[in-house]
Amino acid sequence: MLYIIGLGLGDEKDITLKGLEAVRRCDKVYIEAYTSLLSFGISSDGLSKLEELYGRPVTLADREMVEERADVVLSEARRSDVAFLVVGDPFGATTHSDLVVRAKSLGLEVKVIHNASVMNAVGVCGLQLYRYGETISIPFFTETWRPDSFYEKIQRNRQLGLHTLCLLDIRVKEPSLESLCRGRKCYEPPKYMTINIAIEQLLEVEQTRGESAYSAETICVGIARLGSDDQQVVAGSMKELQAVDFGAPLHCLVIVGETHPVEEEMLNFYALKMETMKSKGDLTNSGSV
Amino acid sequence: MLYIIGLGLGDEKDITLKGLEAVRRCDKVYIEAYTSLLSFGISSDGLSKLEELYGRPVTLADREMVEERADVVLSEARRSDVAFLVVGDPFGATTHSDLVVRAKSLGLEVKVIHNASVMNAVGVCGLQLYRYGETISIPFFTETWRPDSFYEKIQRNRQLGLHTLCLLDIRVKEPSLESLCRGRKCYEPPKYMTINIAIEQLLEVEQTRGESAYSAETICVGIARLGSDDQQVVAGSMKELQAVDFGAPLHCLVIVGETHPVEEEMLNFYALKMETMKSKGDLTNSGSV
Repeated sequence: MLYIIGLGLGDEKDITLKGLEAVRRCDKVYIEAYTSLLSFGISSDGLSKLEELYGRPVTLADREMVEERADVVLSEARRSDVAFLVVGDPFGATTHSDLVVRAKSLGLEVKVIHNASVMNAVGVCGLQLYRYGETISIPFFTETWRPDSFYEKIQRNRQLGLHTLCLLDIRVKEPSLESLCRGRKCYEPPKYMTINIAIEQLLEVEQTRGESAYSAETICVGIARLGSDDQQVVAGSMKELQAVDFGAPLHCLVIVGETHPVEEEMLNFYALKMETMKSKGDLTNSGSV
Repeated sequence: MLYIIGLGLGDEKDITLKGLEAVRRCDKVYIEAYTSLLSFGISSDGLSKLEELYGRPVTLADREMVEERADVVLSEARRSDVAFLVVGDPFGATTHSDLVVRAKSLGLEVKVIHNASVMNAVGVCGLQLYRYGETISIPFFTETWRPDSFYEKIQRNRQLGLHTLCLLDIRVKEPSLESLCRGRKCYEPPKYMTINIAIEQLLEVEQTRGESAYSAETICVGIARLGSDDQQVVAGSMKELQAVDFGAPLHCLVIVGETHPVEEEMLNFYALKMETMKSKGDLTNSGSV
């Protein structure tokens, strides 16, 4: 049996009881390492917090391993119970459909244990999930690669009055260009896009396209470390959010569409510079909502 | 402190460790009863399974109570730790923004503990979450009330090649019209829309509107009891799915947009009548994915 178990967004205690019982039953436990394990306190010296909780050794599975050695994982799952742990939900922002398809093609039983992902937890900012349009991803621009197909999607969402969730690029274990040229793989240090960089790129694309899909005045919500104890949610214009230090990754950004009164009330609590906030103390929101 | 804790979609074991620790710390525990508690095995004789797990008495809070007695809940939360439990995620399909806004206006600290909701767990059917457009709700039609504003939304999503998640109506503790006329409240038995009724209504609206937003041949995915052990996922045309018995609630429906190859492979596993499935045994999928 192959268990694919969502770990949620915060730390090791965001696993569900069902997930924990399953992982404790498994003979072999893998954890995907190609999105982000930052908030799970996983460092180079191992996965001690998770391993302690599970009472099982945990093997880090990077993208290479999952792609190149999936057969090994799947043949283990044929003989015994194997857990594949993923940050967030197994079918959240990063999906594991490939692994499921391969497992099912081999006639393996696959059991999914769900958890929160950015795709639903983003609701915490007060914008209703059913008022979101298509989700977009913003990749790191390079000198030669500046893909901006997200522009039309934002434009469309805004024309329909819908909010846009922007997922920001994560680069983990990318082979460095230099090392590829030399024929041996060395890896770049992990790189996480900040809200500030995302807005900079968004405004650059708007300037190039010039169709006023959005502007520096467009209201957005910046969310850092969603679901963690030190989560930070700040609402303001793109220009205003560009000046905010959101701290450690992960970051994501919501471009706000048309709002309903209850949505506005919630945004007010997170507003950076609105008059209504002045009497309420905290300008940003850390930890709890 | 007010904790708003998501319970996930399956049963009492879908709470997270963090959620369980919080609820065990609380002096008073409420559970919202105005969506669906079906899968949590909650019957008229009480909330025994949950109460046993939490070691705390749990109070059922219906919509009336939350609306009329929110002040009581909030003033308890001012003096002590109070948990408000919700099925799915606190900001999933049913949002609890109102309660949060009221709590924050009173200066109360609010802590949200996320979990899976239909909005992300629907990813299990293999369609990528970032390829969904606006989510729609399909209400029960009555003789005199047949709102069809979802039609334009489906049309728009399909024009853009996006999938549409359809949330199906739940009627819990609705005062009966007869009882309202008599001046005392009696309640209708709970009513959950099936996939079959949803498709019937969708096709009726298409017939009235006649703009070919979709048809009886449009491919959909019907999902029953999402996230539960006896979850059922079936892909097929509207006409085909109309003939499937999906069993007990809750049901939801996805109207499929343009698909990518990996999405198609996953849909094949759930397909009702595709040639490719014939050799693979199970036509529908129960329990595991």
